[in-house]
Amino acid sequence: MENNKKVVLAFSGGLDTSFAVKYLSEDCGYEVYTAIANTGGFSPEELKSIEERALALGAKAHATLDITQEYYEKSIKYMIFGNVLRNGTYPISVSSERIFQAIAIIEYAKKIGAHYVAHGSTSAGNDQVRFDLTFQILAPEIEIITPTRDMNLTREYEIEYLKKHGYVADFKKLEYSINKGLWGTSVGGKETLHSNETLPEEAYPTQMTATADSRLTIDFDKGEIAAVNGVPFADKVKAIQHIEEIVAPYALGRDMHIGDTIIGIKGRVGFEAGAPMVILGAHKMLEKHTLTKWQQYWKDQLGTWYGMFLHEAQYLEPVMRDIEKFLESSQRNVTGRVIIDLKPYRFILVGVESDFDLMKTSFGEYGEISKGWTADDVKGFTRILGNQMKIYYSIQERNNKTREV
Amino acid sequence: MENNKKVVLAFSGGLDTSFAVKYLSEDCGYEVYTAIANTGGFSPEELKSIEERALALGAKAHATLDITQEYYEKSIKYMIFGNVLRNGTYPISVSSERIFQAIAIIEYAKKIGAHYVAHGSTSAGNDQVRFDLTFQILAPEIEIITPTRDMNLTREYEIEYLKKHGYVADFKKLEYSINKGLWGTSVGGKETLHSNETLPEEAYPTQMTATADSRLTIDFDKGEIAAVNGVPFADKVKAIQHIEEIVAPYALGRDMHIGDTIIGIKGRVGFEAGAPMVILGAHKMLEKHTLTKWQQYWKDQLGTWYGMFLHEAQYLEPVMRDIEKFLESSQRNVTGRVIIDLKPYRFILVGVESDFDLMKTSFGEYGEISKGWTADDVKGFTRILGNQMKIYYSIQERNNKTREV
Amino acid sequence: MENNKKVVLAFSGGLDTSFAVKYLSEDCGYEVYTAIANTGGFSPEELKSIEERALALGAKAHATLDITQEYYEKSIKYMIFGNVLRNGTYPISVSSERIFQAIAIIEYAKKIGAHYVAHGSTSAGNDQVRFDLTFQILAPEIEIITPTRDMNLTREYEIEYLKKHGYVADFKKLEYSINKGLWGTSVGGKETLHSNETLPEEAYPTQMTATADSRLTIDFDKGEIAAVNGVPFADKVKAIQHIEEIVAPYALGRDMHIGDTIIGIKGRVGFEAGAPMVILGAHKMLEKHTLTKWQQYWKDQLGTWYGMFLHEAQYLEPVMRDIEKFLESSQRNVTGRVIIDLKPYRFILVGVESDFDLMKTSFGEYGEISKGWTADDVKGFTRILGNQMKIYYSIQERNNKTREV
Amino acid sequence: MENNKKVVLAFSGGLDTSFAVKYLSEDCGYEVYTAIANTGGFSPEELKSIEERALALGAKAHATLDITQEYYEKSIKYMIFGNVLRNGTYPISVSSERIFQAIAIIEYAKKIGAHYVAHGSTSAGNDQVRFDLTFQILAPEIEIITPTRDMNLTREYEIEYLKKHGYVADFKKLEYSINKGLWGTSVGGKETLHSNETLPEEAYPTQMTATADSRLTIDFDKGEIAAVNGVPFADKVKAIQHIEEIVAPYALGRDMHIGDTIIGIKGRVGFEAGAPMVILGAHKMLEKHTLTKWQQYWKDQLGTWYGMFLHEAQYLEPVMRDIEKFLESSQRNVTGRVIIDLKPYRFILVGVESDFDLMKTSFGEYGEISKGWTADDVKGFTRILGNQMKIYYSIQERNNKTREV
Repeated sequence: MENNKKVVLAFSGGLDTSFAVKYLSEDCGYEVYTAIANTGGFSPEELKSIEERALALGAKAHATLDITQEYYEKSIKYMIFGNVLRNGTYPISVSSERIFQAIAIIEYAKKIGAHYVAHGSTSAGNDQVRFDLTFQILAPEIEIITPTRDMNLTREYEIEYLKKHGYVADFKKLEYSINKGLWGTSVGGKETLHSNETLPEEAYPTQMTATADSRLTIDFDKGEIAAVNGVPFADKVKAIQHIEEIVAPYALGRDMHIGDTIIGIKGRVGFEAGAPMVILGAHKMLEKHTLTKWQQYWKDQLGTWYGMFLHEAQYLEPVMRDIEKFLESSQRNVTGRVIIDLKPYRFILVGVESDFDLMKTSFGEYGEISKGWTADDVKGFTRILGNQMKIYYSIQERNNKTREV
Repeated sequence: MENNKKVVLAFSGGLDTSFAVKYLSEDCGYEVYTAIANTGGFSPEELKSIEERALALGAKAHATLDITQEYYEKSIKYMIFGNVLRNGTYPISVSSERIFQAIAIIEYAKKIGAHYVAHGSTSAGNDQVRFDLTFQILAPEIEIITPTRDMNLTREYEIEYLKKHGYVADFKKLEYSINKGLWGTSVGGKETLHSNETLPEEAYPTQMTATADSRLTIDFDKGEIAAVNGVPFADKVKAIQHIEEIVAPYALGRDMHIGDTIIGIKGRVGFEAGAPMVILGAHKMLEKHTLTKWQQYWKDQLGTWYGMFLHEAQYLEPVMRDIEKFLESSQRNVTGRVIIDLKPYRFILVGVESDFDLMKTSFGEYGEISKGWTADDVKGFTRILGNQMKIYYSIQERNNKTREV
Repeated sequence: MENNKKVVLAFSGGLDTSFAVKYLSEDCGYEVYTAIANTGGFSPEELKSIEERALALGAKAHATLDITQEYYEKSIKYMIFGNVLRNGTYPISVSSERIFQAIAIIEYAKKIGAHYVAHGSTSAGNDQVRFDLTFQILAPEIEIITPTRDMNLTREYEIEYLKKHGYVADFKKLEYSINKGLWGTSVGGKETLHSNETLPEEAYPTQMTATADSRLTIDFDKGEIAAVNGVPFADKVKAIQHIEEIVAPYALGRDMHIGDTIIGIKGRVGFEAGAPMVILGAHKMLEKHTLTKWQQYWKDQLGTWYGMFLHEAQYLEPVMRDIEKFLESSQRNVTGRVIIDLKPYRFILVGVESDFDLMKTSFGEYGEISKGWTADDVKGFTRILGNQMKIYYSIQERNNKTREV
Repeated sequence: MENNKKVVLAFSGGLDTSFAVKYLSEDCGYEVYTAIANTGGFSPEELKSIEERALALGAKAHATLDITQEYYEKSIKYMIFGNVLRNGTYPISVSSERIFQAIAIIEYAKKIGAHYVAHGSTSAGNDQVRFDLTFQILAPEIEIITPTRDMNLTREYEIEYLKKHGYVADFKKLEYSINKGLWGTSVGGKETLHSNETLPEEAYPTQMTATADSRLTIDFDKGEIAAVNGVPFADKVKAIQHIEEIVAPYALGRDMHIGDTIIGIKGRVGFEAGAPMVILGAHKMLEKHTLTKWQQYWKDQLGTWYGMFLHEAQYLEPVMRDIEKFLESSQRNVTGRVIIDLKPYRFILVGVESDFDLMKTSFGEYGEISKGWTADDVKGFTRILGNQMKIYYSIQERNNKTREV
């Protein structure tokens, strides 16, 4: 039963998973199939070098699973629809990708008939939960192996082990752990480990290089990006990447996320997410013009929850499908152009142009003229609107209660 | 029955209410008692000049009602506790004051035994509802008079009328209508009347004059500002004003609010709210460190609603008192220092120092070390956390359903 | 321009609308087109007799608009999906119909090119808002006429007026005002006008006549009724009517609704809604077995809001379409049989049989055996679940705070 | 260091904890201190017999911790304020007690300086989480021991073990596992293990013995029971017990709870909770008369969450204290008498008498007369209320969209 020894390892090319290839094949005697799921954060060159490392380390085969479009269709799209910012700040840059990477890995494992699936997460973060949970739900029959977590290994031990087994590479510990993705880059380490410092400018991968302000327009069609600076984009991934190219020199979308991890502790992480922050800002402003008050109210509720569950490894919860239907429906009029001014370190949402703009009405203009109603209408409105409170306060008085306010 | 002719007029010194003094006294034969409720937006000089104008126009008496501290205690405090930003953007700078002005005016009217109360709002905005609703609820027996709204008067007519009645003043129409308050300044007109332009820099009352970056610290004690740059402030109004002085040269807190008015139309207004935006940002960051995930979740819900009702003239709704109790309770550990870096047009929330910081635990550190739990604990956690989804997906499969995601 | 005189009158055959036919045609000189929109509450005989009365009163033409299926498809279906019970009690028996009646009436008015639309509501209830709002939104160009409301007419005046104009009929004031519909019957009057009495048994239209307990089964398919006692029903209206026939002799679903009206006052109304209460109870129990915890949580939120807006004349709010998409999505596994025992005045939800029952799992049984997890898994789960609270309480202690509970 | 061997065992007198006394003392060599926390479910006789058994089994000492009043003050009170019914059905009869029992046990353990704390829960239910979580949070330094769970012991093994160690008692397995408490009795077993049957009448501990209908009145003061049938009760526990005596003969409050357990599986349990269901029904009806629409709306949201967290062992979550403040504030006018008719197997909420009844207003009566507003007021109200939708639909039309409904 050679199948029994087949393990699929989620391989990133880093120290932990490099160790795992060697350890699982040499010490444990498994056939190691490495796989990497690309959600848009890796260049072809990076993917190639990862593959080479996997094979050099002794992987029986290596698979590159490109799920960028799927990641957009199943996650980014809804994060835009829902204006998802965790804690009002963080576009869930990296964590949302993990789920889709986990899904791709476990599907690959099922496809090749593996009996085991492995990942390199430690016991102190969110990613272990994202991998474990997704693997278990979609393939309860496949056993999960996590050497780094289980043996609580140090960097030194792993490097030494690899060296002993004939593999030497430059696994230098970087000052910051940087995780690049289609929807933003996270930056952790040093200052983020404490509460009272923030990242210095040079810790961010992209530096401010813009020499002049500029104007950007994004066209949305039913909530999705349709054009950038007037140029149509059928491929939404390319549109996001294009916006990123345009805004990156302005060093936009940098901030610090202080959040509650799935495992209950607080964590801090810096991030740089120029395109996401510009797109989300633009999209939300277009919604302010095209949606009703109560659509916005409920979108906020559901978008917040959607973001929380996405972040917390609960993407597969059936309620997420229900929320997606709500969000999709809400976008039916979110069509129009948003104008944005780009400046060093910040951007200004200038305005929108939309056929569905609820401000462009012949009924009246705020604070200026009212053609759709009269002074008496508003008086009647206010009288009825105040009815219950009028009754409430009169009853308070009747009962000789001190007025509440 | 001279009492029958007593009217209290909410007087701002502007054209509409100036007209009203003359009109109500001369045409209608009322005894006009003018009153202005200051919530922190007027200087002593401005208040004095308003009083002089009222008397010059023929007011029988003029009252200056100082409710700045009350405004802080009953509104700003809870807006800070609730991190209230309407639509995620607007600190409800001016609209929140109207309610307290209305309360002060109607109480004054009751105190002096007036039979009428008057205000100068038009039929196209939110303020008419704020005044009418508050007046009706707290004094259903006092009749409301609104000449400008009822007669749909133009500026030209009002100026001409005043001239005919011997009062000439410089009521020049400003390009922008500016409304200054303790919690920010609103700027309306020109660009804000359309959807696709934003205010030019010079439309904002405060200009960028800072010549160097600087660091600011704000200490909070149970959610309230306790000290600024280490200097204690018992008077919270003074603390806010002091922060405003510090941050104003950086031209912070400028943005455009696109909102749903009480009367159903969309409205746009620019605002400049340096101190509010810095205080709210700092307060929220401190909460991210000191509150649990679910406290933050529910505070968001209730804070959003509180802001909506405050904005929409529903401050007197009894549920607001219930929400205030929740918000107050939630602040019991929101104590600590927040460090902020001020830069031209933007600020950076550097970090916090707090004895109640939930990150400062001996149990573990995100992504680094875990002393409070083991790898097996997380595995068990994940297994149980995934139980319902595992069951759900297995039942889907048993029923030969195509997988949902 | 004869068109100018065309009015469509929502005609129920009662005193107010009978008066309106005569008044509008004879006093005002309009061409009166009466119309009645049947949502399932009228029998063919009743509809015929209403038509005869309309023509006898002088209507130029009378239209019977049958919208029963539409009412089910656009309203009842979603009320079942959302388990809608206003205030946890009232299935929104009659009020939900008004909206669809209003839509049908205004569409008819547009179709025949009417310039006016009229209804007979008074100024003290919810229905005036339902009619006015719907008419205005869907046809702002058609003017609304409401004689009874505007002239504040008494019954006596209307009867006398009709007599003078040659129309005599038996418009006796009933002790209770009874409003029968597909989704229940409301009973108002006498006891419902005060707070401390309830309706006597004889006030309810249906009396307890059952002589033996019996068992009923309802099969649901994706949330909709598929079969009753094993007999398939393609026509869902017929299924509801069939269930009503079965349960009516048991006098089920009687209760009193105490609610907040759209106009701010409190109102009380009795109702009898046997089929709706049995169907909603059965549907909700099936959901408890087939939906996840969070699906149920969010369905509750959205279902409550949906019911509130439906009740409050806001059916046309765009957010309602978004909520419908959510609710529909949530029903994808709500398939199975529910067993109900019928007894005098009450019913017992016995249980369910469903292929999608999340209780029917091989992973474990509550309180009995656990095959899907170990004792250690639960220990790990609990340790991680308690992490944040453990940190919170340890920090409280570190700060020498008295324990909160 | 004798202290090292001190263990406090939560002792119920059942088989699992009886085994634990012997096992922990004889096999493990601990000093076993048994303790039982009474929340109102045990009679003095039962408590005495439990104590005797503990000592007979070899406990070094036994403590009876009476926390009935505390349980009322910290839990039942808020469940009444919040109208807490899990899933709209279950008054959280037994599960809410566990937390307070756990708190009492762990406090006792700390007081006597124990190094261990033990309970008898298995790995398949909710109680293990309630005990573990509470113990860990309040005393992370005390180790938890759970013999039954850890060794996965069978009844037969435990009985045999006790016999071998000289203890013989009648531990017969009952057909139903019955758990009596102040806030209701749960009944599990047989039918509850499957989805399609319900408990037979004889499975419920209380049988229908009433021979005549009767009327009951409950007076509330700020949401708490003040009098029963006119007799004042300062002791709220006694009031609940008195109501239970009155309603028990009618066999009220029986139902089946189908719920999501903390560990993710679905569970079913029957319950009998006459007094709780009558009290909650009465309280909620009084609120319908005395609270505003939005107070009820938000109480529902927060009450539902409060119940969920109470059920799921999260009573110590800090947000619970915030919710309690909200709920308490909301009760300031929930004062008045509720009239209830008791009948076999059901009760009718007849009505309320309250000085704070918002129906008792001079402003108008639903559907009858309106003194507080005119027809024109409602027309104006409706016009403004419909403004946004009118704009929305006109813009849809302008864009040639098919109408949404």
